Amino acid sequence: MHINQQQIKQYESQYRARLINSLSGFKSANLVGTINDKGVTNLSIISSVFHIGASPALVGLIIRPHSVPRHTFENILQTKRYTINHVSADFWQQAHQTSARYAQEQSEFKAVGLNEEYLAGCSAPFVRQSKLKYALELREVVHLAINGTELVIGEVTDIMVDQQAVRKDGYIDIESLETITLSGLDSYHTSQRLARLAYAKPQKPLSNLSLDGEEDEI
Amino acid sequence: MHINQQQIKQYESQYRARLINSLSGFKSANLVGTINDKGVTNLSIISSVFHIGASPALVGLIIRPHSVPRHTFENILQTKRYTINHVSADFWQQAHQTSARYAQEQSEFKAVGLNEEYLAGCSAPFVRQSKLKYALELREVVHLAINGTELVIGEVTDIMVDQQAVRKDGYIDIESLETITLSGLDSYHTSQRLARLAYAKPQKPLSNLSLDGEEDEI
Repeated sequence: MHINQQQIKQYESQYRARLINSLSGFKSANLVGTINDKGVTNLSIISSVFHIGASPALVGLIIRPHSVPRHTFENILQTKRYTINHVSADFWQQAHQTSARYAQEQSEFKAVGLNEEYLAGCSAPFVRQSKLKYALELREVVHLAINGTELVIGEVTDIMVDQQAVRKDGYIDIESLETITLSGLDSYHTSQRLARLAYAKPQKPLSNLSLDGEEDEI
Repeated sequence: MHINQQQIKQYESQYRARLINSLSGFKSANLVGTINDKGVTNLSIISSVFHIGASPALVGLIIRPHSVPRHTFENILQTKRYTINHVSADFWQQAHQTSARYAQEQSEFKAVGLNEEYLAGCSAPFVRQSKLKYALELREVVHLAINGTELVIGEVTDIMVDQQAVRKDGYIDIESLETITLSGLDSYHTSQRLARLAYAKPQKPLSNLSLDGEEDEI
């Protein structure tokens, strides 16, 4: 089936949104925790968190124009601090519910039944139920004039994670933490590992890695 | 387990790279197809493809400084055209092998055993084996000075997809296409759907959607 640009433009807007949101592949499922200067907390599910660099440790996320997570954006600009919390299998439905349009003075934590947790030095709330979460300091906001979205770049300052998930070589086994993945706008999935693969070289046959990153003998 | 910023900075660089690359959650697994002005094709696995907007249909990807996919970046700048091809369960190992440092004059298609496919009006090659793929026209390159990476933004011009995967409301069932997801730098996973969830509203209990997007009756 071939869909051309003319057809893409003519689709009804919700149909097009679902179709185009399916194209990038599986997405990360994260809850972004913030607080405003009046002390009201906010929690918002975001599927656009992505890796930018390891040194410094930078993570990006996209804020869409005029969408619900705009409170999140305002809070990040006010306080320069936010948390990112992996959505896991035991609260994925509550995580989805944070996308409802709650009033600014209502905290999504309370509305959906998730608990706040705090770390000294970070004003933004973590999600207690999340098994992998980290605090960030705002580094840069890049306005993408092409469609009015904002790219928010933060530096990771503190990581909270179940120790047994951190493997010998630094890899975090997020499947063991039951981290969820998203497709399209609204489909939630668990994962099943095929393998870790060793660093690829041109003349070398591929080999698997153990979970701890040791290369299997051939 | 709490890891602070000081510890993050002191980790050995490969350890830190694996750790920080695990933080964003599950990533998309895509092959980016390009061609240079001498007619040499290039294929590169990229885990940073993400959705930017549906109207216009914009997709972003991050190119790291001094990394293998730099040929990809040069080709995109030269021709303004590229393809994004979902990695699926029947060629995920070949897809990983494209990350080896092949010489510029060697095509990864041939090196790893994947086939080129072309569409009229697009110079860049598709991966024949991929079940969901699309052509893009370069719209913008945003240089992220904070760590020297490049954000490449393209507009989708043509989508090639197995018709039965496109559901009634526009959602593409990428799980039925066996699209793979990635965690960290090198771990590959298949997925298992929990459910599609209906649009969330503050006072409404959550409900599931059918694969075609119809709300289940309560």
